[in-house]
Amino acid sequence: MKIVVVGGVAGGASVAARARRLDEFAEIVVLERGDYVSFANCGLPYHIGEVIADRSRLLLQTPESLHETLAIDVRVGSEVIALDRSAKTVTVREAATGREYVEPYDRLALCPGADPLRPPLPGIDLPGIHVLRNVTDMDEIKAQLDEALAAAASAPGRTGGGVRAVVIGAGYIGVEMAENLQHRGAAVTIVELADQILPPLDTEVSVPVEQHLRSRGVELFLSTGAAAFAERPGGGLTVELTNTRFIDADLVILSAGVRPNVGLAADAGLELGPRGGIRVDTHMRTSDPSIWAAGDAVETAHTVLPGSWITPLAGPANREARVVAENICGRDTEYRSTQGTSIVKVFDMVAGGTGATERQLVAEGVEHRTVHLHPSGHAGYYPGTAQMHLKLLFAPGDGRVLGAQVAGFDGVDKRLDVLATVIRMGGTVYDLEELELAYAPPFGSAKDPVNMAGFVASNVLLGDLVLWYAGDWPAAVEGARLVDVRTPEEFAIWHIPGAENVPLATLRAACEGWDRSAPVRLYCAVGFRSYLAYRLLVQRGFADVATLSGGSNTFRFRHG
Amino acid sequence: MKIVVVGGVAGGASVAARARRLDEFAEIVVLERGDYVSFANCGLPYHIGEVIADRSRLLLQTPESLHETLAIDVRVGSEVIALDRSAKTVTVREAATGREYVEPYDRLALCPGADPLRPPLPGIDLPGIHVLRNVTDMDEIKAQLDEALAAAASAPGRTGGGVRAVVIGAGYIGVEMAENLQHRGAAVTIVELADQILPPLDTEVSVPVEQHLRSRGVELFLSTGAAAFAERPGGGLTVELTNTRFIDADLVILSAGVRPNVGLAADAGLELGPRGGIRVDTHMRTSDPSIWAAGDAVETAHTVLPGSWITPLAGPANREARVVAENICGRDTEYRSTQGTSIVKVFDMVAGGTGATERQLVAEGVEHRTVHLHPSGHAGYYPGTAQMHLKLLFAPGDGRVLGAQVAGFDGVDKRLDVLATVIRMGGTVYDLEELELAYAPPFGSAKDPVNMAGFVASNVLLGDLVLWYAGDWPAAVEGARLVDVRTPEEFAIWHIPGAENVPLATLRAACEGWDRSAPVRLYCAVGFRSYLAYRLLVQRGFADVATLSGGSNTFRFRHG
Ligand SMILES: Cc1cc2nc3c(=O)[nH]c(=O)nc-3n(C[C@H](O)[C@H](O)[C@H](O)COP(=O)(O)OP(=O)(O)OC[C@H]3O[C@@H](n4cnc5c(N)ncnc54)[C@H](O)[C@@H]3O)c2cc1C
Ligand SMILES: Cc1cc2nc3c(=O)[nH]c(=O)nc-3n(C[C@H](O)[C@H](O)[C@H](O)COP(=O)(O)OP(=O)(O)OC[C@H]3O[C@@H](n4cnc5c(N)ncnc54)[C@H](O)[C@@H]3O)c2cc1C
Ligand SMILES: CC(C)(COP(=O)(O)OP(=O)(O)OC[C@H]1O[C@@H](n2cnc3c(N)ncnc32)[C@H](O)[C@@H]1OP(=O)(O)O)[C@@H](O)C(=O)NCCC(=O)NCCS
Ligand SMILES: CC(C)(COP(=O)(O)OP(=O)(O)OC[C@H]1O[C@@H](n2cnc3c(N)ncnc32)[C@H](O)[C@@H]1OP(=O)(O)O)[C@@H](O)C(=O)NCCC(=O)NCCS
Repeated sequence: MKIVVVGGVAGGASVAARARRLDEFAEIVVLERGDYVSFANCGLPYHIGEVIADRSRLLLQTPESLHETLAIDVRVGSEVIALDRSAKTVTVREAATGREYVEPYDRLALCPGADPLRPPLPGIDLPGIHVLRNVTDMDEIKAQLDEALAAAASAPGRTGGGVRAVVIGAGYIGVEMAENLQHRGAAVTIVELADQILPPLDTEVSVPVEQHLRSRGVELFLSTGAAAFAERPGGGLTVELTNTRFIDADLVILSAGVRPNVGLAADAGLELGPRGGIRVDTHMRTSDPSIWAAGDAVETAHTVLPGSWITPLAGPANREARVVAENICGRDTEYRSTQGTSIVKVFDMVAGGTGATERQLVAEGVEHRTVHLHPSGHAGYYPGTAQMHLKLLFAPGDGRVLGAQVAGFDGVDKRLDVLATVIRMGGTVYDLEELELAYAPPFGSAKDPVNMAGFVASNVLLGDLVLWYAGDWPAAVEGARLVDVRTPEEFAIWHIPGAENVPLATLRAACEGWDRSAPVRLYCAVGFRSYLAYRLLVQRGFADVATLSGGSNTFRFRHG
Repeated sequence: MKIVVVGGVAGGASVAARARRLDEFAEIVVLERGDYVSFANCGLPYHIGEVIADRSRLLLQTPESLHETLAIDVRVGSEVIALDRSAKTVTVREAATGREYVEPYDRLALCPGADPLRPPLPGIDLPGIHVLRNVTDMDEIKAQLDEALAAAASAPGRTGGGVRAVVIGAGYIGVEMAENLQHRGAAVTIVELADQILPPLDTEVSVPVEQHLRSRGVELFLSTGAAAFAERPGGGLTVELTNTRFIDADLVILSAGVRPNVGLAADAGLELGPRGGIRVDTHMRTSDPSIWAAGDAVETAHTVLPGSWITPLAGPANREARVVAENICGRDTEYRSTQGTSIVKVFDMVAGGTGATERQLVAEGVEHRTVHLHPSGHAGYYPGTAQMHLKLLFAPGDGRVLGAQVAGFDGVDKRLDVLATVIRMGGTVYDLEELELAYAPPFGSAKDPVNMAGFVASNVLLGDLVLWYAGDWPAAVEGARLVDVRTPEEFAIWHIPGAENVPLATLRAACEGWDRSAPVRLYCAVGFRSYLAYRLLVQRGFADVATLSGGSNTFRFRHG
């Protein structure tokens, strides 16, 4: 059997490696148009930032090592330019020689990944405007940055001061690039068309990260795009923004999303999905029974949402590729779905999500409930912890967990992974209540944040707690008695306009004279004290009580 | 309704708090024999170590705060000395006054916890020998330590140098105390009767932690007990060990386990379980329909093992208590099982387990399979990671995960929690393969260690990989060709006696002339290269091949 693989990085190299383990005698050819295979795409920003000092660490395997250990025939600088499905061949062009040749296959795996978007703006092709997808891109960016830093260092009096960089697009690659450029000493501006950074998050969770970015000195323009680029007399670029500003930049990073590489597949008549990726079945097989596909170029079922989705992430690419190899080698393995678990480090913060966002649930018309919590990463009395911002989305009927997002400092990745596991296992908020997680003071709390999210969510489903939401303000409090149950000291520092302050400890007595039929809207800092207040009012016969999900903490992220 | 709660810490305070939220008008009385309620037991070692500087941070609630916010009648210094089930009363003795009175209840919750064991050794009651269970114990230990440190500082020439402490028992409290005492400047010796530290771990996983303890200057005697204690002329103690050594000590910490406080329950005729804890049903109800119990004093079903178990941990105590309150308040909530998830920080290392250990599975006769892995906490090319030691136990039939243990530096708690979640959800090793966990270089790998564990385990179950175990050496390699597939450089540093070195890259050629019917036993450093070797030999017709689980890494933890 001859297996040909197009693309030699996350998806492609993984297909080839697994296929070799399953079939020692297959002929396995990997065709990669670039100069490198099996490199750590995800590490590229950190070598630019010199956090990963040794460039060679990013090259996980080489054509030589893959040949030595796995007897794989890896050909770099070899672009597949045509696919003939009836002849079962691909046409390969060698970059070095320009030579073209035809390579037959019995089974073909397409893992061509995705290319960064280059919006067709005036000046987009000027030197100094970069995308970051592979080692060559990285080398170019780093060389230009090193040069600009050296120039700035040798000419400290230069107009405009040090090195300036503009990052266009605030997805995780943009944010990682901003951090790494700043780490090297550049002044960084991020420009983002949407009204928030990091699409896998809803705004209540993205805002604390935006605040952190700004507190670390990164300039951030939301709801703003790049309009044009121009060369600056004397070197560098000027970036014109849609908000009518002009920003000088020594270099520009375009991180405005990626587009799946489907040209080869489409030209050969393979079916594409509704979102423009290669269509595959649960065996990762395309519409041609001899061709499989994996990675950023494919559409797969979503774990929570209807329809098929393109999820350009390394974990799915690797696991899809493993399924491709198994099916190519005659096994019957299924890839069930992708849930889009993602995470990003942003200076000292960490943020990520798994499953669906509320934005997606709304867009797809999926009924859901929401709770917001702000627990600490580990026991508050043990040093080194901070509040995290946790948003949980779940189904109103059976309580199935639909999505979760977390931003914070310590223990964020852990809670995301636990929640991702529960989503993957089809679990409910009642399962979250029962999880028995590892507890000692440096690591968590006896009731872990994930347990807490389960408690609050199940209280909502069982009718033990009724919430109102910052997003519904001010409508949500109109005509209601708005009661802040925090202490007078907290109230004095900040409170929601129109609130009266009735500290929890005095509420049992204070509410005696209140009209039990009038609506009461409660809040505190995070939602715990107002929950206690809710319970005591409702059991005293108050007919219409609700407490603010996530308290003033969430409210202020929403309303500034 | 009148609810009386015996014990006011993890279990008791949680019962009372949840009961109040469910029933605003119940009378709720908490009776606590000690001087404090609602304190952070788990933080006690860290205040002694002055890692938690502020003692008041350990007092999460006070009788006053519980009264203010939750209208709970908390009585400290109030020991329940008798329980009359037919009269539905308890007898309370006030420590301060000696007064005894009778308190009636409608529903009673027993949360009396456990007491540290004090083995009946000669001299066990000498001053300077401490247990650590509550705030008073902590204050006493800290006062004595502070005094000894001050004395040593003011008399630097004193025979024997600085302060010396002996910790008896190397469970997690013993190990935490060792770290904290050492952190304060004491020289610490740990004495442990078993042949390993940390009972929730099997030896392959406990040994690296023992090595770390020793590398940090802690003296550790395994398979050794204390035999007797004697006063030392001039102050301090001498501890006589069963290994015939004598150790001078300024203070001794007894951390040799706990015994459930069942006296009250047993005297009142409540049923106990086979392990001596209070017997409860899945509603946490005792054999008396008006009495519930939670925490260290009860026996509950185990998630993985047959029978009922005592699991003295804070998470279970808190969640059991919540179930107690719900049932007391008329809800029908079940507590399903405890899986014993636990974790401990040991200087820079972290170690823990969830589900059953291999020792327990063997003792209970539960059929199981085992794999060992040594993945890094996050992507190896991103700074700040180290190898972890992961042991996974699973059922041979359906692949259900039965237990997992992890020791390492970064990301240990996260993998434990993910594995604990899968165990709780009844998941299998095939589920581990499919988990979609949060990946960016600072946090993990595209194939997370947990995915990897799933891959290796499912390979074992599907017959794609046959393992041999360090524990079966040397029998496992007798009569076999023992092949080390690492590089010559690695082989030169250390290898298993009798091994021949055939580096993986040369194996395809080298094996041509080998006898395919003779058994081959492979190994490498962690098991990955020898897995590749396994695949290529088996597919070449070698009839009896196996590779060493966890490689030389696990082997050396096992055989020194
Ligand atoms: C800077 C950066 C940071 C990232 N960080 C993260 C992260 O932290 N976490 C995460 O989950 N994901 C991250 N990703 C995404 C992750 O790298 C991708 O999801 C993953 O690499 C996709 O794998 P793939 O095999 O589909 O595509 P790729 O890894 O891109 O491989 C596709 C390969 O196919 C080659 N190719 C395309 N067409 C042809 C052709 N016709 N002939 C021959 N070769 C062809 C391309 O040259 C390319 O090398 C990051 C990506 C980048 C660029
Ligand atoms: C030093 C230390 C560190 C620990 N670290 C961890 C950790 O990191 N992780 C973890 O999960 N667990 C840890 N634990 C265990 C955890 O604290 C216990 O599992 C948990 O507190 C059990 O709760 P409980 O309510 O059953 O018992 P307790 O919290 O001990 O409360 C029982 C209370 O009942 C009182 N009482 C007993 N009898 C009577 C009576 N007759 N009348 C009135 N009052 C009575 C006692 O005085 C006691 O205060 C640690 C424990 C200690 C001591
Ligand atoms: C590295 C790469 C070539 C894949 O290599 P691979 O040979 O599949 O090896 P991995 O390191 O992923 O290990 C997985 C295999 O090792 C096995 N394995 C791991 N540890 C093991 C152990 N201790 N014992 C036995 N087997 C082990 C697993 O079972 C699995 O084999 P299987 O798929 O046959 O079951 C490919 O993933 C790649 O090119 N990655 C870089 C690009 C990338 O992923 N980019 C995005 C992230 S930055
Ligand atoms: C603190 C203690 C009194 C229990 O307090 P508690 O009132 O149950 O409060 P917790 O802080 O545990 O919070 C849990 C409650 O808050 C609710 N909650 C938490 N965050 C919330 C939010 N943001 N919005 C609404 N409700 C919230 C939960 O739903 C839960 O209520 P429920 O049980 O009625 O569903 C008790 O656990 C204790 O004494 N602990 C110290 C001893 C101990 O545990 N020792 C061992 C570990 S060191």
